[in-house]
Amino acid sequence: MTFRATILTLYPEMFPGHLGASLSGKALERGQWSIEPVQIRDFAEDKHRTVDDTPAGGGAGMVLKPDVLARAIDRVSENDDRPRLLMSPRGRPLTQERVRELAAGPGVVIVCGRFEGVDQRVIDARDLEEVSIGDYILSGGEPAALTLLDAVVRILPGVMGNELSGVHESFEGGLLEHPHYTRPQVFEGREIPAVLTSGNHGAIAKWREAEARRLTAERRPDLLNQPVKK
Amino acid sequence: MTFRATILTLYPEMFPGHLGASLSGKALERGQWSIEPVQIRDFAEDKHRTVDDTPAGGGAGMVLKPDVLARAIDRVSENDDRPRLLMSPRGRPLTQERVRELAAGPGVVIVCGRFEGVDQRVIDARDLEEVSIGDYILSGGEPAALTLLDAVVRILPGVMGNELSGVHESFEGGLLEHPHYTRPQVFEGREIPAVLTSGNHGAIAKWREAEARRLTAERRPDLLNQPVKK
Repeated sequence: MTFRATILTLYPEMFPGHLGASLSGKALERGQWSIEPVQIRDFAEDKHRTVDDTPAGGGAGMVLKPDVLARAIDRVSENDDRPRLLMSPRGRPLTQERVRELAAGPGVVIVCGRFEGVDQRVIDARDLEEVSIGDYILSGGEPAALTLLDAVVRILPGVMGNELSGVHESFEGGLLEHPHYTRPQVFEGREIPAVLTSGNHGAIAKWREAEARRLTAERRPDLLNQPVKK
Repeated sequence: MTFRATILTLYPEMFPGHLGASLSGKALERGQWSIEPVQIRDFAEDKHRTVDDTPAGGGAGMVLKPDVLARAIDRVSENDDRPRLLMSPRGRPLTQERVRELAAGPGVVIVCGRFEGVDQRVIDARDLEEVSIGDYILSGGEPAALTLLDAVVRILPGVMGNELSGVHESFEGGLLEHPHYTRPQVFEGREIPAVLTSGNHGAIAKWREAEARRLTAERRPDLLNQPVKK
């Protein structure tokens, strides 16, 4: 089964973007995943192809119209049980756990908002899952969709090949990753910590675990207070 | 002064990526900001142009060599006081506050890691600021750099023009944004909340504030417990 991403956007030219390069690009060429950007504007029915309107209640910005977006969603998700995401800073923060769930499924439909936002009624009526990639504001949902897809595509079977196997990662066991070192042995007077070149595998594992704990406590105490993510 | 981004990467072809389209792309053409991807491999000194080596202490993956990366950093940041970032899941989570600080400065130098990681000694020796865009794992620093730059470029003077002025945003005052509605008045039997079409601006403002609080409490109680971000 091929992982299939459909992107509803006003900027289809942004896709596949950086996902067309490197290992994700090669996997795309090999057909290990696919990406189909769909222009929301094609589902407008007036002659000006209007997709947005002023916010009810006043205020700056424009809001994506519910009827146009609903038509676009319905068209691309006929006979389709892929999850439907809406990239939004109001969404649930993306986690590696959710990335893994998505990668194990048939694909995603991703709605990219622009302007001030998306009419709440289409979010409710089409049961869109609002997902946030972080607590900052982007120009639209497109950079967020590309980021989410990078995380998902990376772990699809066969994409990274051996590069991924056995690699420890941040957030495994709820901790940030320990520091890394490689040759040269001395860099600008700084040595590789002696334990790492000791050949004592037990001591190395212990040091790495302790460093991961220290870093997490220092930088992300919030992670230590969470239930461990699988 | 033009905001200047220099990206150290093994995949220079990923830039400007989606930032070459839409408003950020037009601003790039107008010279309101600039982006220069620099190939780290050009700073390797052996005939194989080696940039990575196996991790000290063993384990899977490869680590970016400190000497090669230090040469690249030194070359691009001569006589230069731009902040030097390293995109990394171990970093401090990116906030809108940090985005605003960066946008107010002369630019950034961004190091994009790949493989298992970057030798800790070059992080220390070149005082790299580790920045994370979220708690998930990407194929490398490049998608993260593009995301961070999107957030920064968006708020550079003149980039978004009037689209931005007066727009309320998530994380303003530490809250998620209230829901939006626009025409039609009835969508699939769902009406716009009556208060928004009442013309009573005081009541509208109150409703939006209450909705923002309700959504934040429901989805992101962690934000309510933080000091208010400016």
